[in-house]
Amino acid sequence: MRTIDWDSDAIVIIDQTCLPCAEVYLRLDTVPDLVDAIRRLAVRGAMALGVAGAMGVALAAQGAQAGEVDLDGAVRRAADALRQARPTAVNLAWGIDRALSALPGGPNAILAEALRVRDEDVTANKAIGERGADFLAPLGRLTLLTHCNAGALAGVEWGTALSVVHHLHQRGLVEEVLVPETRPLLQGARLTAWELARAQIPHRIIVDGAGAGLLLAGVVDAVVVGADRVAANGDTANKVGTVAHALAAHRAQVPFLVAAPESTVDADTPSGATIPIEERDPAEVLSWAGSSTSPVDSAAYNPAFDITPADLITGLVTEHRVVRLAAGEHPITTSIVGSV
Amino acid sequence: MRTIDWDSDAIVIIDQTCLPCAEVYLRLDTVPDLVDAIRRLAVRGAMALGVAGAMGVALAAQGAQAGEVDLDGAVRRAADALRQARPTAVNLAWGIDRALSALPGGPNAILAEALRVRDEDVTANKAIGERGADFLAPLGRLTLLTHCNAGALAGVEWGTALSVVHHLHQRGLVEEVLVPETRPLLQGARLTAWELARAQIPHRIIVDGAGAGLLLAGVVDAVVVGADRVAANGDTANKVGTVAHALAAHRAQVPFLVAAPESTVDADTPSGATIPIEERDPAEVLSWAGSSTSPVDSAAYNPAFDITPADLITGLVTEHRVVRLAAGEHPITTSIVGSV
Repeated sequence: MRTIDWDSDAIVIIDQTCLPCAEVYLRLDTVPDLVDAIRRLAVRGAMALGVAGAMGVALAAQGAQAGEVDLDGAVRRAADALRQARPTAVNLAWGIDRALSALPGGPNAILAEALRVRDEDVTANKAIGERGADFLAPLGRLTLLTHCNAGALAGVEWGTALSVVHHLHQRGLVEEVLVPETRPLLQGARLTAWELARAQIPHRIIVDGAGAGLLLAGVVDAVVVGADRVAANGDTANKVGTVAHALAAHRAQVPFLVAAPESTVDADTPSGATIPIEERDPAEVLSWAGSSTSPVDSAAYNPAFDITPADLITGLVTEHRVVRLAAGEHPITTSIVGSV
Repeated sequence: MRTIDWDSDAIVIIDQTCLPCAEVYLRLDTVPDLVDAIRRLAVRGAMALGVAGAMGVALAAQGAQAGEVDLDGAVRRAADALRQARPTAVNLAWGIDRALSALPGGPNAILAEALRVRDEDVTANKAIGERGADFLAPLGRLTLLTHCNAGALAGVEWGTALSVVHHLHQRGLVEEVLVPETRPLLQGARLTAWELARAQIPHRIIVDGAGAGLLLAGVVDAVVVGADRVAANGDTANKVGTVAHALAAHRAQVPFLVAAPESTVDADTPSGATIPIEERDPAEVLSWAGSSTSPVDSAAYNPAFDITPADLITGLVTEHRVVRLAAGEHPITTSIVGSV
C-alpha cells in the first residue's frame, strides 16, 4: 500500500478521512482538487505532504503543457496555492520548492524530481526506523507511547515514529503501543490503530489526557512521535497534545524521541516561538460525527499544533543521525545542512 | 438549581448524562437506583458524591424502617454497595461514613445527618470560591484554564474550581475560561461549558491536548481544578488529563490551584502512589455517541484519573485555608484534621 503515488498524469491518494471504515482511493488531476484534499486532511502527515507538494507542482506543469499556457506563471500560482493549504507544514513547502527547482528543465524534469522526492521518502523513512530502533533497543522490550499518526499513512510507505515501532517489533522488542486518540480529528484512534492492527502489533487506544499520567505512573518506557517542523534550535512543532507527553516523559526520565526526515528541520526558523501555529475550524472541537458535544452557544479554540521545547527531546532521529537535543546538541550543522 | 436534594423519602438529582441537551431530573427511591446513577455518572463530582453517599444511607434506613427489617444490617449492606460504586472517590466513602455515624440514633437521625452534609457542602463551596478568588485576585484580570467539571454540577450549588471562577467573575476579573472537553465523557464540553454559558462567563472549549501548549505559549494566567482525593502529602487524584496541565503550568510558572473541601483530604492515604485509580469501560474511549471511532479489533485502556504530585500544586484551596503545597506546606495538621 502506498498512501500517495503518481499514476499517468494524476496523483492517487488513499482518502484518510474514510479510515478506518473504508479504504477509498482518490484520483486527483487538478491542483484545486489537491489543495482541497490537503485542507480536509484526506492526505496529511509531514512526508506525505512533501510528496504531495512536489507532485502538485508536477500536476500544474503537465496541465500548463497540455493547455499550452505560460508554464512559469501557472506553476508558480499553483505553488502559492499549495503552500497556503497548510501553512505550518514545512515539508509541504519543501516538496514544492524541490519540484520548482526543476522548472528550467520543463514539465518532464519537474515530474522526475517529484518522483525522486517520493522514492527518497521511502528510503529515508526506512533508515529513520532502523536508526530509532537502534537507539531504543538497548532498553529491552518496551511499552511505547506515540501521538497522532506518524505512520505509513503520514508518508509513502513507512512513516517516521511508526517506522521506529515497526523496526522494534521486527526485533521482538514491542510489548505494547499506547495510542492517544488525538482529538479533534482522531488520527490516533483511526489511523495509527488501523496501521498497528494491520501489522499485528499489540496496542491500546487511550484518551489524549491519559498519556502524562501513565508516563508518571511508570507504565511507559519510551515516547516516539513525528514532527511537522523542527526549528534550528531543535524546538519541534507537532500535533496538539504532543508537549504534554514530553513534559511527563522528562519528569519520568523516559526517552522522548522525535522521528523526522532531515527535510523537517527548518534552518530559517530560529526557534519554536517563530513557528506559525495553524488554527483550525472550531467546529472540529464542538461536534462529533455530526452531533454537537457542547451547548449551542459555546465557542471553541482549535490550535492544531503545539511546540515541544528542545530541552525536553532526548533525541531527534533522522535518516542520517540522532541529535541529542536535551543534551545540548544542535540540529543545524554545516555538513548535514549542506547535504540536504 | 440544586444538583442533588432530598424530597420526601427520595433523592432527586439532575441527570448529568443528558446535559447539555436536556435538563432531566431523576427521583431515586432505592439504593440500587442510586448505585446505578453513580456508576453511569448521572450524579458525579466529589462533593455531590459525598451528599449522595450520605443520602443513600438515609434511603436504606428509611427503607428498612418501612419494611420493618433489621436496620443495622440493611444500612451496612447499602453502605458497602454504595462504596463500591466509585472506589476512587474518597468523598463518597466520607459521606457514607458521616451518615453511618448517626446509625445509633435511628433513621431520622441518619436523615438529619445526611441533610447536614448537604447544607455544609453549600456553605463550604461558597467559602472555597471566595478564598480561591482572594488568592488569585492580586494577579488582575485572568485567562483561566480548568479541567473536567468541578462546578455546581459536581456539588450541590456552587462547586469548587468553578466556585473560584464565579467569585472572580463577580469581581470582574475573568477575561476568559479555557475549557478542556475532557474525554472520554466530555464533562468539560457538556457540563462546564453549560454552567459557564448559564452564568454568562466568556469561555472557549479546547481539546484536552491543547492545554499544555497554551500554557507554555503564555496564553493562560492560572489553572483551577477540583480533586477527587488529596493524599496526606498533597498528591492529588483528579480527572485523567489534569497532571498534563500541572506539568505545563509548573514550567510556565503559572499558579496551579486545586479547589476542594477538607473532606477530600484523606489522612489515611500517605501519597498518590497508594490512591487506587479506577479503570472504566474501554467502550467509553472507542466510541462516540454510538458510533465507533477506531478499528473494530482495537482495544482501549481507560484510567479515569491521574495523580498530580504535590510539588506541582501552587495551592490547595479549601473552605478553611490555602495550603501552599509546592512551597512545602503539608495538608495534614492536627488542628484542621481535628475539626473535620
